[in-house]
Amino acid sequence: MKAHTKILVLHLKERYGFRNLTEEVQRAVDESGVKEGMVLVNPMHITASVFINDDESGLHRDFLRWLEELAPHMPGLAYDHHRTGEDNADAHLKRQIMGREVVVAITAGRLHLGTWEQIFYGEFDGQRDKRVLIKVMGM
Amino acid sequence: MKAHTKILVLHLKERYGFRNLTEEVQRAVDESGVKEGMVLVNPMHITASVFINDDESGLHRDFLRWLEELAPHMPGLAYDHHRTGEDNADAHLKRQIMGREVVVAITAGRLHLGTWEQIFYGEFDGQRDKRVLIKVMGM
Amino acid sequence: MKAHTKILVLHLKERYGFRNLTEEVQRAVDESGVKEGMVLVNPMHITASVFINDDESGLHRDFLRWLEELAPHMPGLAYDHHRTGEDNADAHLKRQIMGREVVVAITAGRLHLGTWEQIFYGEFDGQRDKRVLIKVMGM
Repeated sequence: MKAHTKILVLHLKERYGFRNLTEEVQRAVDESGVKEGMVLVNPMHITASVFINDDESGLHRDFLRWLEELAPHMPGLAYDHHRTGEDNADAHLKRQIMGREVVVAITAGRLHLGTWEQIFYGEFDGQRDKRVLIKVMGM
Repeated sequence: MKAHTKILVLHLKERYGFRNLTEEVQRAVDESGVKEGMVLVNPMHITASVFINDDESGLHRDFLRWLEELAPHMPGLAYDHHRTGEDNADAHLKRQIMGREVVVAITAGRLHLGTWEQIFYGEFDGQRDKRVLIKVMGM
Repeated sequence: MKAHTKILVLHLKERYGFRNLTEEVQRAVDESGVKEGMVLVNPMHITASVFINDDESGLHRDFLRWLEELAPHMPGLAYDHHRTGEDNADAHLKRQIMGREVVVAITAGRLHLGTWEQIFYGEFDGQRDKRVLIKVMGM
């Protein structure tokens, strides 16, 4: 059995946005030497997501508009969380809809993804350094 | 350590619907010979989900009605994604609410599920062949 | 390769609420002897979630208020699921938004979590015994 750990650092200039991580996750799998197994990818932050969906900019705009409808950014005291001085409760909620993590199969040394499956980092409270953990496990 | 990969092909005649995959996932675990470990189950498509919930047809109707309220099917240009010629942005959104994948524990060669936990495929853009990946890993 | 299985029993007096499981999950990792690997944590029930977010009581109130807006508790026949005699369809829906399970990396024998990441049990139909499954796998 083999295990490999890698941490990516991202810094989005926007408050909200998406980055395609697929190539970097494949690189971590390559480094691990794992041919059969699984890889876990998750942000180490609670206002961000790692998810799998389409690499299509129109859809990404749809995601952000939709998330804003379901969990609007409201910097005042409409959210109890803001009594702590924070203004990002919406980011904690948006991340629950998009999910925290993905687990992807590794087969013959490659991420076993469907044709259109791409791994994304979803940022909902950016403009600062954020870390993404990649954990590869297998044989 | 052992690993086993299996791909199911599904074709739902409806645009939206659910299929119980629990028995087929247990069969893949049986084939793998894994007694202790985990199994990952995910669609290889970005307009479908694999999730765990109740095998109750009334609840399934509630799910579909609720998803339609939260992320309505709107074939026009209300979604930017449709500028690509697609009409299924709602399916990409619905799949984020229901989730992409499940990871289930394997104990003594059996899926370690609670009494009412059943593994479902959730289709949000059907009427075509879709694949589901099952990856078993353990010892 | 090593695997370890542990089941926690929780009983919340409230219908809706959250409990921090992080220490108990670390304890299961300690018992397993696993230094590198992954741990899966999931409720064995379909009206509850295990998720990772902030240990902040204001945010938890925000979560419950928000989930009630998105998937309201309606004990009558507004939900088809209630034709079975149940009154908890909202709990099945809320759990889909918050997710079923988390998978957490184990590095050097410790849960590999970011500074603010805490593992929570989310109850949406409490006042009875519920089980949470912890499955540790690695080397």
